[in-house]
Amino acid sequence: MEILDGKKLSEQIKEEIKQAVILRKENQKKIPHLAAVIVGNDGASLTYVGSKVRSCEQVGFKSTLIHLESKITEEALISKIRALNNDDTLDGYIVQLPLPQHIDEEKILLAVDPKKDVDGFHPSNFGRMALEMDSFIPATPFGIMEMLRRYKIDVSGKHCVVIGRSHIVGRPISILMSQKNNPGNATVTLAHSRTKDIEKLTQKADIIISALGIPEFLKADMVKDGVIVIDVGITRVLDESHPKGYIIKGDVAYDEVSKKSSYITPVPGGVGPMTIAMLLQNTLLSCERKF
Amino acid sequence: MEILDGKKLSEQIKEEIKQAVILRKENQKKIPHLAAVIVGNDGASLTYVGSKVRSCEQVGFKSTLIHLESKITEEALISKIRALNNDDTLDGYIVQLPLPQHIDEEKILLAVDPKKDVDGFHPSNFGRMALEMDSFIPATPFGIMEMLRRYKIDVSGKHCVVIGRSHIVGRPISILMSQKNNPGNATVTLAHSRTKDIEKLTQKADIIISALGIPEFLKADMVKDGVIVIDVGITRVLDESHPKGYIIKGDVAYDEVSKKSSYITPVPGGVGPMTIAMLLQNTLLSCERKF
Repeated sequence: MEILDGKKLSEQIKEEIKQAVILRKENQKKIPHLAAVIVGNDGASLTYVGSKVRSCEQVGFKSTLIHLESKITEEALISKIRALNNDDTLDGYIVQLPLPQHIDEEKILLAVDPKKDVDGFHPSNFGRMALEMDSFIPATPFGIMEMLRRYKIDVSGKHCVVIGRSHIVGRPISILMSQKNNPGNATVTLAHSRTKDIEKLTQKADIIISALGIPEFLKADMVKDGVIVIDVGITRVLDESHPKGYIIKGDVAYDEVSKKSSYITPVPGGVGPMTIAMLLQNTLLSCERKF
Repeated sequence: MEILDGKKLSEQIKEEIKQAVILRKENQKKIPHLAAVIVGNDGASLTYVGSKVRSCEQVGFKSTLIHLESKITEEALISKIRALNNDDTLDGYIVQLPLPQHIDEEKILLAVDPKKDVDGFHPSNFGRMALEMDSFIPATPFGIMEMLRRYKIDVSGKHCVVIGRSHIVGRPISILMSQKNNPGNATVTLAHSRTKDIEKLTQKADIIISALGIPEFLKADMVKDGVIVIDVGITRVLDESHPKGYIIKGDVAYDEVSKKSSYITPVPGGVGPMTIAMLLQNTLLSCERKF
């Protein structure tokens, strides 16, 4: 069993990005600049955004945190987004989800200039990705693909079961894994809440990518020996014995499943840190005007 | 066994569209107008385009056939496309594929105004579809979904194997079948040229959608009893005994597979005519400015 060490790998990728920024500086080129918009004071969202901003500093990017009140109107938020679209100093920005109930996420998403959509959530980027054109790939699936690439895991012809059909993880990773590419060319089954007898699927899978958000859903008796397991789940589980009052759990019962796996991502320290690294990578690509 | 009669169903849909056009005329509203661009003289392409134009006439649409020489430059074709984008009399248009070798299909595709892209091939429409927003759905997958809807076939929770990952059929139908919708909510496996032991997948499938282009690929021993079979294959097979010199074959060995099926589409007369009906439907939607 080999652990897919997302923490270590993400540090390596961030180091590469840092070197690229230093080189840009030496050549008097623009320094990448990422902005993050956060609306309201959700604890998890603040943690994620904070960690994105810190990562920007770590690689030498310029970063701007735009913290807006939760009662901001949809109109005001859209005009803020327009301003970001028109800000030439900015290479990319993200709008941290979820947004407050009174704001239509789809409208906000569509207001983002696809050229600055480093989250890859705009339909124009999503369609380009699905049709195998250059695009910003959403950071989490991008991180998973990069992890498979760097660990040189051959997934071609293998049967991959993706659990969860969210727009930001399950759907895009199911597309990427089955495209004619390397990594890619896997036979992909997309399972979700309406899937019957999911264990019959997972028991035969060569690769399982779980993005469900149910702590320790995937048990040892649901997988076969030698399986490759990518755990995208990040759920806060209350734990009074822990100083923070909670611990982070993945979708996979790690202790028992890891014994049967050939490769497995831990939680935390697996897909999570890769996601942030790939957001930085997208911002660098945007700055380099790669597409 | 019930035959999914695409010919009959498409006539019914075209009749509904015809009535909608008559009503528009009575209310002095604009009559839908579809243009078709064809480059060169490929026999099959001319047949398809001719049949699209005839269908427009049948439902009372205005139609324009733009037949261009195969040696047209990419630049000239793009400027033709720009003119179509700016033509306010036009609700939609299609560019018949394939294009000659010297023309970059991706460039042409991206030049089409998404609002007139009734084929649903532009990444902006494709992304909107994948992210469950209103969009033009590519006509073939749209036709398959409409067929399932009108025959009231419940696919929720069923295991659907899609064979072929093309941008215009396999990929979009795999997305649509697994979305939270009705029809939809199927557990979908996308199989393709790199898939190993495909018969092990098809033998367990409740639904098989084949868009492979290999005549009579799917045999009776590859399916289970009661399977629902949608055959998207349309291959011309030389046959000197036939007046045209060829016959049309699907991906499915119909005579033997139909005996085990609960529902099956014939070729011809299945998915093919539905495709044209849904192209007309998209044009009507565009004229009504539904999105």
